[in-house]
Amino acid sequence: MSRTLILVDPLPRTLDLIMEPSVRARLEALGEVVAFEDGPMPDETVEALLPDTVLILGQTAMGRERLDRAPKLRAIINVETNFLPNVDYEACAARGIPVLTPASAFAAPVAEAALGMALDLCRGITAADRAFREGIEAYGLEGNADTVRFFGADVGIIGFGDLGRTFRDLIRPFRNTVRVFDPWLPAAVIERAEARPASLDEVLSRSRVVVVFASVTAENEGFIGAREFALMQPGAAFILMSRAAVVDFPAMLDAARSGAVRVATDVFPVEPVPADDPVRTTPNLLLSAHRTGGTRDAFFEIGAMAVADAELIMRGLPPVLCRRADPATASRLRSKPVTVS
Amino acid sequence: MSRTLILVDPLPRTLDLIMEPSVRARLEALGEVVAFEDGPMPDETVEALLPDTVLILGQTAMGRERLDRAPKLRAIINVETNFLPNVDYEACAARGIPVLTPASAFAAPVAEAALGMALDLCRGITAADRAFREGIEAYGLEGNADTVRFFGADVGIIGFGDLGRTFRDLIRPFRNTVRVFDPWLPAAVIERAEARPASLDEVLSRSRVVVVFASVTAENEGFIGAREFALMQPGAAFILMSRAAVVDFPAMLDAARSGAVRVATDVFPVEPVPADDPVRTTPNLLLSAHRTGGTRDAFFEIGAMAVADAELIMRGLPPVLCRRADPATASRLRSKPVTVS
Amino acid sequence: MSRTLILVDPLPRTLDLIMEPSVRARLEALGEVVAFEDGPMPDETVEALLPDTVLILGQTAMGRERLDRAPKLRAIINVETNFLPNVDYEACAARGIPVLTPASAFAAPVAEAALGMALDLCRGITAADRAFREGIEAYGLEGNADTVRFFGADVGIIGFGDLGRTFRDLIRPFRNTVRVFDPWLPAAVIERAEARPASLDEVLSRSRVVVVFASVTAENEGFIGAREFALMQPGAAFILMSRAAVVDFPAMLDAARSGAVRVATDVFPVEPVPADDPVRTTPNLLLSAHRTGGTRDAFFEIGAMAVADAELIMRGLPPVLCRRADPATASRLRSKPVTVS
Amino acid sequence: MSRTLILVDPLPRTLDLIMEPSVRARLEALGEVVAFEDGPMPDETVEALLPDTVLILGQTAMGRERLDRAPKLRAIINVETNFLPNVDYEACAARGIPVLTPASAFAAPVAEAALGMALDLCRGITAADRAFREGIEAYGLEGNADTVRFFGADVGIIGFGDLGRTFRDLIRPFRNTVRVFDPWLPAAVIERAEARPASLDEVLSRSRVVVVFASVTAENEGFIGAREFALMQPGAAFILMSRAAVVDFPAMLDAARSGAVRVATDVFPVEPVPADDPVRTTPNLLLSAHRTGGTRDAFFEIGAMAVADAELIMRGLPPVLCRRADPATASRLRSKPVTVS
Repeated sequence: MSRTLILVDPLPRTLDLIMEPSVRARLEALGEVVAFEDGPMPDETVEALLPDTVLILGQTAMGRERLDRAPKLRAIINVETNFLPNVDYEACAARGIPVLTPASAFAAPVAEAALGMALDLCRGITAADRAFREGIEAYGLEGNADTVRFFGADVGIIGFGDLGRTFRDLIRPFRNTVRVFDPWLPAAVIERAEARPASLDEVLSRSRVVVVFASVTAENEGFIGAREFALMQPGAAFILMSRAAVVDFPAMLDAARSGAVRVATDVFPVEPVPADDPVRTTPNLLLSAHRTGGTRDAFFEIGAMAVADAELIMRGLPPVLCRRADPATASRLRSKPVTVS
Repeated sequence: MSRTLILVDPLPRTLDLIMEPSVRARLEALGEVVAFEDGPMPDETVEALLPDTVLILGQTAMGRERLDRAPKLRAIINVETNFLPNVDYEACAARGIPVLTPASAFAAPVAEAALGMALDLCRGITAADRAFREGIEAYGLEGNADTVRFFGADVGIIGFGDLGRTFRDLIRPFRNTVRVFDPWLPAAVIERAEARPASLDEVLSRSRVVVVFASVTAENEGFIGAREFALMQPGAAFILMSRAAVVDFPAMLDAARSGAVRVATDVFPVEPVPADDPVRTTPNLLLSAHRTGGTRDAFFEIGAMAVADAELIMRGLPPVLCRRADPATASRLRSKPVTVS
Repeated sequence: MSRTLILVDPLPRTLDLIMEPSVRARLEALGEVVAFEDGPMPDETVEALLPDTVLILGQTAMGRERLDRAPKLRAIINVETNFLPNVDYEACAARGIPVLTPASAFAAPVAEAALGMALDLCRGITAADRAFREGIEAYGLEGNADTVRFFGADVGIIGFGDLGRTFRDLIRPFRNTVRVFDPWLPAAVIERAEARPASLDEVLSRSRVVVVFASVTAENEGFIGAREFALMQPGAAFILMSRAAVVDFPAMLDAARSGAVRVATDVFPVEPVPADDPVRTTPNLLLSAHRTGGTRDAFFEIGAMAVADAELIMRGLPPVLCRRADPATASRLRSKPVTVS
Repeated sequence: MSRTLILVDPLPRTLDLIMEPSVRARLEALGEVVAFEDGPMPDETVEALLPDTVLILGQTAMGRERLDRAPKLRAIINVETNFLPNVDYEACAARGIPVLTPASAFAAPVAEAALGMALDLCRGITAADRAFREGIEAYGLEGNADTVRFFGADVGIIGFGDLGRTFRDLIRPFRNTVRVFDPWLPAAVIERAEARPASLDEVLSRSRVVVVFASVTAENEGFIGAREFALMQPGAAFILMSRAAVVDFPAMLDAARSGAVRVATDVFPVEPVPADDPVRTTPNLLLSAHRTGGTRDAFFEIGAMAVADAELIMRGLPPVLCRRADPATASRLRSKPVTVS
């Protein structure tokens, strides 16, 4: 007899991680949930379920042959939030099967952490606390020798997707001049956000605060290196929120160590960072262990967005919360699978 | 022969500290500037200048008798930003001499630092950096065990003058429910800022983040003590931006030490803080050495506001940037003179 | 020899109407522009061009067979801003050919006109001018017997696409409670815009001002009729900005005529409206001849958005300004071709 | 026996007009209310009450002698919202008696009406309705021959008190470049509102929309005349919200009649306007019978602000909602008493 299955293959997530009970109940109302959480769903399980599967939530490999064996499939929703190369995106498009991911689930927590880090570097918050605990604090004006006011400062944003735009919205009361470098976007998108399209060099040389949200692609690995750090203003702040691979990491540490710029980073070339890594003792550096996005409520947001769009799809309506994979660009992305949730 | 004097007696400030050259030039266009910066202006100097003085910029004692000897005086502009008890405010009012101070000069830097501290406590920024440097950092969700999202969190503001209102404006994109306790204000002022008037207990018990901007008065010394900290939610953030005397400082440190709340403070009962003060080793505490307001540009703002209002006054127009001393309340304020600039 | 053609078939638009010279120059830099503006492009011309066509700008019929004859085709950009049933949307999806339209080009002018009409109905602007010209104006409070303050009033929005969201953004300073009815959207989309998802009846019964931006679909023709107008508050304002077919037009005119509600409409069941149509003399009705969207700069916006996305597509990047046709919903839309530009 | 009297002399207002019952109850909790509403309070009544009067709400003449006979008087609150010359402001200042008025009560309704009028003139709302009723409407682009988009248009504001600033806040989502002419204000006040200080000529010549909120003073009567209208851009909008005397009214009508500018006015040299006044037939003119401020809730706001400040004053706190009369400027104001409420 025919069943209506929802195949859930969420590794490295789990259903409990990404769904509050009320959201899970809504998912279960859409069909029979079959989940495998002890690893990637075994191939034989996938194969057995495909004929009756209407939705896939997870990172299951879905090549053309598997799509052929899933005639009822209406959508694939990746819950890891990065599109992986194990899906045949063009074949999905041809079959009218949207491949989605709740990419913006982490935007709000990352953006507010980026603002926290920007204020920290500009106003010396962590540095002042450290000095105080060492008994060498300086009061009043004397304690502000290196201070930059964030209010009104020129800000540069590199990468203007969900993260960059959310950050831009959060800083609106600070009335900064905001320059954006994003070669994937037309000027109009940037201007609508009351920011100025700019070249990479212009963003780096004119900003007191630069925040990097760019994704890694085949073309932009290490595109911010020694030459680029040398363009920055003395004492400017550089905040790396996206993948470590977009910068030349040693060059970034050199820039911090020399005092030329102040740096904050949430990402590292290798995570966890080795115990003896010099990053741990680098001055002018604010360290964050890949934790700005991964708050409990951000994970719940993944599930909430996935289920809300799944509900629309099952009603024959277009999804509106998740990002759709674009066959033309999905193949350029160089995301490695996440191994630490 | 008659002169038009501007008496400048700025201790603990200096003219160079509070005025950029272009602003000073505008001051000099209003009259002959006579400044004394090596201490308070000597009495005999003051007495000699009073007959021709049109403006006082500074903290000169101005009792009734001196006012009698200053027939041309049109305004007194305090540049320390706290009204002192050495002026006869009622006599000034009777003579139509406004007593002013650019009180809001520090509002913008203090408010942005308060937001930086709020984000720091909520998202664990300084704590995470410290853990990383100690080699005990936690990644991703594990690193967010104690994290609070500032976006959407309930925020309480105690004291809703320039500082509190500027802070409220800065956090607008975060869409918090904002409760305000300020017994000097009618509900309408708070509601116009899209916040809710609330009792002290309600602010403390319902907020994830409480920021204190209240001035010290004769009535409110130590009004936030052990009882009040016990009202706060577990793990809530308490940020003290105004005078230390409004809290029971040892009770605040106890609350931090116990882990009940996370605390940030920019002020201390005694400054500089003694070398062996236990505050330096208290956990769950973010330390700032009375430095959130005293940025270089904030000091310049003092001069810019003072001169802009002086220009209006000399044209016969009302001042609009500085705060006027209100005889009815000036006497309640318990500001001690600032000794560290 | 192979050519790179851009087929332009813009009826009822013309290239001059939708593109400023600088934008047209950018289009011409993408390929050889072949335009036909004296009517729909003749079939034989289309057929001759298809083998070398990389982009279509216009409303050319593109069934499956034609797609087969256009192997280089990379995108179809409708410039009429409503998807028509003469394209095989599923076949396009299967071939990875996005079908796009700059749907939001009219959002900004329509939204500001809607606010103008809302203020007009609430504050009686047109009505007061008419009374003044008739010599029966009433001054001050007496002239405000029927006035509603828009500031703080409850506002209802029916249809929360580009138009509705732009309107919501424009009224933000008015601090209204905003309720939204849009059955195609999950609650999260509405809540992110600081509005409340609501049923149609709730929107109608609780709002002082109701604005309709809903598109016509197969299911919603005439869904606001006598029953719905009866739910509205006495004297509330009803503003119809989208297609006339979503309301029962005679019922709407009855509601205005009786004085139960005040109505503004930009659309009519038949346009141009017949000379003797009773709408012309209906009281409590503000008339606008389908002109709120069609400003000169809105038409230029069509071309600007189309060309910006065409540039991205030709670089292998995803379009970001135009709306993509969704095969699942395009077929539900009941837009009739526009006959008056 | 001593009484605590609140003298209420509200002509041309009445207590019922300006206070909702709950607000009136709060007033009565402050003292014994003695009101006279059949005209100005008779002199003998005033004289009899003065010895026990703590608050005056109204426009009672209060010269120095009367102040001498009112030893308990703590504040005078004008409820007509314009300071009159029948109070000795300097004597009040000398006695520490603030003279107040809830001047901003009308700001919100006037500002939203100004925006409604600006949108009306820019987008042709009233004109299009009139054309439609005359059977000469034009559809779509043809109906927009003279249309100006308000979004992004250059806006000029003349007079930047409560009205001007509230208007500026309302138009924020429209992202206009805003220029302000206000010779009573320093640049900083204007810049803090994200507007540009400008000369009168610059405001007139560079703006698509000019809104006048300026008060009448001894110096500025008729300061916008034929020369000034000639500076305006062809087809620009001119909106007169404040006193008629600030413009050369015939010159303004000429400018409208010639089609050079589009004009809206809420005020007239003589009110009510004579039946045969040519203003009633002037084209390009939007007429409003001094009714943009006088909404029912605006009158209630007068009472609400007055009572909230009275409560503060009776507690010994400074008032915060009403405007204080400044002796230096009160004498410059040329407000005539309001005769129509």
